[in-house]
Amino acid sequence: MILKGNFLHTPTFGTVEVHRGGWLVTQGERIVGLYDALPEEYRDQPVMDWGDSLIIPAFHDLHIHAPQIVNRGIGYDEQLLPWLEQYTFPTEARFSDLDFATRVWKAFLNRLWESGTMGFAAFATVHKQAAWRLMELTEASGLRGLVGKVNMDRNAPDCLREDTQASLADTEELICRSREELKRTKYILTPRFVPSTTEQMMDGLGQLAQRYQLPVQSHLSENRGEVEWVAKLHPDIPTYTQVYEHFGLLPRGRTIMAHAIHLTQQEKELLREKEVILAHCPLSNLNLSSGIMPLRDDLERGLRCCVASDVAGGNTAQMARTVTATVQLSKVRWMQRPKETPLSLGEAFYLATRGSGEFLGDVGAFLPGFQFDALVIRPTALDALMERSPYERLEQFLYDGGEIVQRYCGGKAVEKPFPEI
Amino acid sequence: MILKGNFLHTPTFGTVEVHRGGWLVTQGERIVGLYDALPEEYRDQPVMDWGDSLIIPAFHDLHIHAPQIVNRGIGYDEQLLPWLEQYTFPTEARFSDLDFATRVWKAFLNRLWESGTMGFAAFATVHKQAAWRLMELTEASGLRGLVGKVNMDRNAPDCLREDTQASLADTEELICRSREELKRTKYILTPRFVPSTTEQMMDGLGQLAQRYQLPVQSHLSENRGEVEWVAKLHPDIPTYTQVYEHFGLLPRGRTIMAHAIHLTQQEKELLREKEVILAHCPLSNLNLSSGIMPLRDDLERGLRCCVASDVAGGNTAQMARTVTATVQLSKVRWMQRPKETPLSLGEAFYLATRGSGEFLGDVGAFLPGFQFDALVIRPTALDALMERSPYERLEQFLYDGGEIVQRYCGGKAVEKPFPEI
Repeated sequence: MILKGNFLHTPTFGTVEVHRGGWLVTQGERIVGLYDALPEEYRDQPVMDWGDSLIIPAFHDLHIHAPQIVNRGIGYDEQLLPWLEQYTFPTEARFSDLDFATRVWKAFLNRLWESGTMGFAAFATVHKQAAWRLMELTEASGLRGLVGKVNMDRNAPDCLREDTQASLADTEELICRSREELKRTKYILTPRFVPSTTEQMMDGLGQLAQRYQLPVQSHLSENRGEVEWVAKLHPDIPTYTQVYEHFGLLPRGRTIMAHAIHLTQQEKELLREKEVILAHCPLSNLNLSSGIMPLRDDLERGLRCCVASDVAGGNTAQMARTVTATVQLSKVRWMQRPKETPLSLGEAFYLATRGSGEFLGDVGAFLPGFQFDALVIRPTALDALMERSPYERLEQFLYDGGEIVQRYCGGKAVEKPFPEI
Repeated sequence: MILKGNFLHTPTFGTVEVHRGGWLVTQGERIVGLYDALPEEYRDQPVMDWGDSLIIPAFHDLHIHAPQIVNRGIGYDEQLLPWLEQYTFPTEARFSDLDFATRVWKAFLNRLWESGTMGFAAFATVHKQAAWRLMELTEASGLRGLVGKVNMDRNAPDCLREDTQASLADTEELICRSREELKRTKYILTPRFVPSTTEQMMDGLGQLAQRYQLPVQSHLSENRGEVEWVAKLHPDIPTYTQVYEHFGLLPRGRTIMAHAIHLTQQEKELLREKEVILAHCPLSNLNLSSGIMPLRDDLERGLRCCVASDVAGGNTAQMARTVTATVQLSKVRWMQRPKETPLSLGEAFYLATRGSGEFLGDVGAFLPGFQFDALVIRPTALDALMERSPYERLEQFLYDGGEIVQRYCGGKAVEKPFPEI
């Protein structure tokens, strides 16, 4: 496949590479190259000419609660605990109903598609059947997904609290079944967070992580009350991060931890060493008043970071809004701490494309050999009034939306997955 | 006209009134009443039944730079001064070309319409003809607008700096012409801000304000550098606010001042006494790192406040995003100053509907005798999966968008004003 258009991507943190009127060649799922002039060997082949449109890497969202897509935007007048009790948990309990689950999963995948998110790591619910359905639908959607059944066997409402051994058995069944039946959709271990998983559960999940060489996703140090709670639950382990480590739940280079707001320097050192990817969720930081993750500082310390929507702590699955909120929140920190320079939009965009894509494989930038995941954005009538650089077009798309006219995932055009829900 | 649906409005700051399956009756431009049961006298009349849709007051945006609609989202990696030089001023200079101006004004009015903004106060540019064109097009659009030609005769680039007397004469011409030829679109005096208007200019505008009993809009104390600059320019006047007062540019109850971030207590007292409406622009506060207006504190001191988009300091004309950013920024302040309680979404919504509508007349709430400006919002397929209260539907619309299926302004349905630009 040969595409022509205005290409922009961020191959490394801090760089923005632009090819105005460039050419991109793919073979199967992967990129052969991105060129300013089409190499001779491709001269006679058909070209998809996107004209003045902007072509950018698609978003990858490494922290999203799939069932909570129905709750996005709701209940932020409340504090965290009433919010969980009134919205989060009652909604998740409904996923024992597989018909309901199916409709929500379809709407969830549609919404990611609409938002230009072609890859993700998602929390399902505790229900084995619902989690399996999400894995099947993800496979059918054409999107790129890591999906985990939530594990939760303490400090949870009765309707969601699991029997430890049953939860571990369900988890292993999903791991094995997905390996046998699915090609692209992978399992990710998903303990909700330390306070809702017993030592037996964490130990069992750590063993599964080791046995099947699986990735892990969870929450870490979102708010101060939670950090104190973990300290009380595990008085013999010095820090929250070390609890995960103790139970084998920080497999090196295969762990996503969301939030990571209130950390000690010692914890940051451990997270760096374990190559954990920290998912910064700026909209959630705001909506739940959790504090603001010190993103610039973490990046300068060499921690791996990405940005994520965290629906429904975040109020939208639109990663463009997460990207701009990342810049805006970095400015809030900068106003208070002049040493923490704000992120440029290009830096924040990297964290939503290659920064997150890195966890999913060779994806998130237009580099030779990489999977081709991309969005084609056509200027609106308003935007077409002005001559603009591709970077300026990116700015307008991220800050105020735009028309995505084509989406590619793994080299293929992807249409809306489920026209009917 | 009789409408049936789920009505929600905020008649006063802090109240949210809901009529599920209610009835609203209008006569001409105005509301007769909002009822839980349709009064007998209307029983035989045709009803527009909006079913499960949510009907809310339309937005009113009291601070927006119309020419900057083309620049929204662009250049926020820059500091304020390079941003003004690179984007703001070169764009405004192009409005000497009336064809260009016409196309941008049409796109501007379309964008307000799309965003559900039915009333506004806008800065045009310094150009008399372009400003007049915006007034004419506003009148034709069916929206409710206050429009002002910008006055600027110092500290401006050559291509935009005006001759003082010519600027005042142009202004007076527009005032008189709009009174003669337009019904609903009104003139508002628009000195850009103190640093770009000489004493002669401010004095002349103050006289026009008095002679024609006109409203005034300008900027106040957006950032600290600007406050210091004003102090240097006017060493004999103690504060920035008093400079406007000195020249008659704070007419009581008829003044909009945008930003108002860095104020002394004395200034706040004066603003309260003059019943100035402060336009809080949260997205602009973030994008330009100006600081965060102490909105809760100002409200508690009895200052009049509204929220506004401030395009292109704000990155979008979508007032829904200004409303949610208002709540989110109030939480940022709350995290740092526990006494400043965050705003609820209902409070922020008030500031974008009745709080701003108050300046435009009897508009912004569903009260008897008020102008009927409203939006009808239909639940999306995703949102229809859940049973929701009207307040929850409002939350989802504001935080993640939704489908506006009808807009009313002054009792009339308003279609997209300019299908072709």
